[in-house]
Amino acid sequence: MRDFSNDHRWLSLNTATVRKQGDLVAIIEACARHGIRAIDPWRDQVAATGLDRAVKAVRDAGLELSGYCRGGMFVADAAHRIEARDDNRRAIDEARALGAPCVVLVVGGLPQYSRPGSVASRDIAGARTQVHDAIAEMLDYAKAAKMPLAIEPLHPAYAADRACVNTTKQALDICDALDPTRSGALGVALDVYHIWWDPDLLPQIARAGKQRLMAFHVCDWLVPTKDILNDRGMMGDGVIDIPSVRAAVEAQGFSGYSEIEIFSDDWWSKPMDEVLKTCIARHRTAV
Amino acid sequence: MRDFSNDHRWLSLNTATVRKQGDLVAIIEACARHGIRAIDPWRDQVAATGLDRAVKAVRDAGLELSGYCRGGMFVADAAHRIEARDDNRRAIDEARALGAPCVVLVVGGLPQYSRPGSVASRDIAGARTQVHDAIAEMLDYAKAAKMPLAIEPLHPAYAADRACVNTTKQALDICDALDPTRSGALGVALDVYHIWWDPDLLPQIARAGKQRLMAFHVCDWLVPTKDILNDRGMMGDGVIDIPSVRAAVEAQGFSGYSEIEIFSDDWWSKPMDEVLKTCIARHRTAV
Repeated sequence: MRDFSNDHRWLSLNTATVRKQGDLVAIIEACARHGIRAIDPWRDQVAATGLDRAVKAVRDAGLELSGYCRGGMFVADAAHRIEARDDNRRAIDEARALGAPCVVLVVGGLPQYSRPGSVASRDIAGARTQVHDAIAEMLDYAKAAKMPLAIEPLHPAYAADRACVNTTKQALDICDALDPTRSGALGVALDVYHIWWDPDLLPQIARAGKQRLMAFHVCDWLVPTKDILNDRGMMGDGVIDIPSVRAAVEAQGFSGYSEIEIFSDDWWSKPMDEVLKTCIARHRTAV
Repeated sequence: MRDFSNDHRWLSLNTATVRKQGDLVAIIEACARHGIRAIDPWRDQVAATGLDRAVKAVRDAGLELSGYCRGGMFVADAAHRIEARDDNRRAIDEARALGAPCVVLVVGGLPQYSRPGSVASRDIAGARTQVHDAIAEMLDYAKAAKMPLAIEPLHPAYAADRACVNTTKQALDICDALDPTRSGALGVALDVYHIWWDPDLLPQIARAGKQRLMAFHVCDWLVPTKDILNDRGMMGDGVIDIPSVRAAVEAQGFSGYSEIEIFSDDWWSKPMDEVLKTCIARHRTAV
């Protein structure tokens, strides 16, 4: 297991962590100030800045990317599926332009939440079938673009509205089915927030293996959680044994960035430099 | 699958659903008014009324019980384990006095939340081992008292503070280990709120079988969920396909009550008779 206690060379910042304190260019400048070497930007932030300007800002700062957030939201009624497909193809094109190593997929929940305007449904099994089929379709385009796709299982609390892939096992079952040779085109993005509770987690990390462990995200689970979406914790402030999960991922050979992604009304209310300083300190002591 | 559309003879009321509108005696009187035949009372409500008075009120009203809430909260540091053991033995004694068919077990999360005052820990695997061992110990006492124990898997959102058994599979693994002959002494209590998201749900219900399906609870999952503990929905107001879960349970031979348990600041703010009328209507149309 890598020693993170002396530096933060393996810290990546998911830009949603400070999305309310500045635009993408401001975040990139702040990363440069704090010696942060990598980011994972969100599409809405890239769009607000303009793709070309975002590409230039990333290059000028000498930043790497640890992912691109996000593709997915596949579940839709028939009238919205082409929109979903085309939107995901654009995500791949943007990821290429930015030099991302993968597109992170948040697969969508029920159609009325995944693609608003879709006819409402309670059929989660049907949603899961749709996700499987849509990833199969997206994978063709992604392979042609040489852009890996990383399925992110989301906590079961988001099953209805954000992602009906809720365990690492489910994500890997899709990988097995659609990329049985483990070509590197399809894998998983694991965020401790979503998976820490899973009694099957360690066997599934071993099952994933290095080839399919494409991203590793950290934050913490607070007790109480005041808001299920926007009350994630800074590493060390909650109940997740983060080092044990990182040890399991690294035991498979994962050697990439430890990406900090915190959706938090509390942390969004603090100055960007204070948040980044805290991220760096906690990366050293609690990850 | 039983037809619930014409009456509510298989409706049981978990008394937490109206716990803020009246004490246990008032709830029992309201059930009598509305032709509700069964309840599942909580220990704090029984304690507030007094056990003898509660037993008499249940008998006088001719009510059955569909369970007794709750035993568990097993996870504790060494200094608090005897307290947990003895508290659970009292729960069994009370359940016998009340004529309950089983004690529902909410097993506890990390020790600092499960038994406040315990030394804090992030070791969820250790918590799970403790739960296994504590149920084994409780089972001896329960068997002597002829009181079945029903393990309730709780939604993964409660893994830290309420229950580290978070899937039906986990609960059944404990049943297999501690009661391999399926004697009827140990089973599961399934609440759609906690399990609806689980991609492995239907196979696990089949695995459980009639002997181990000891209780079936209903409410609904709202989107958005404003509060992870106290914003559960009335059946029909959320995203859970409740009839499909009931069909699976009944396909195994389950023929007991469909117990309504709703923790909701919204429903607690309404008059008890309005809540019960709505429960009865939704039991007929949405369960």
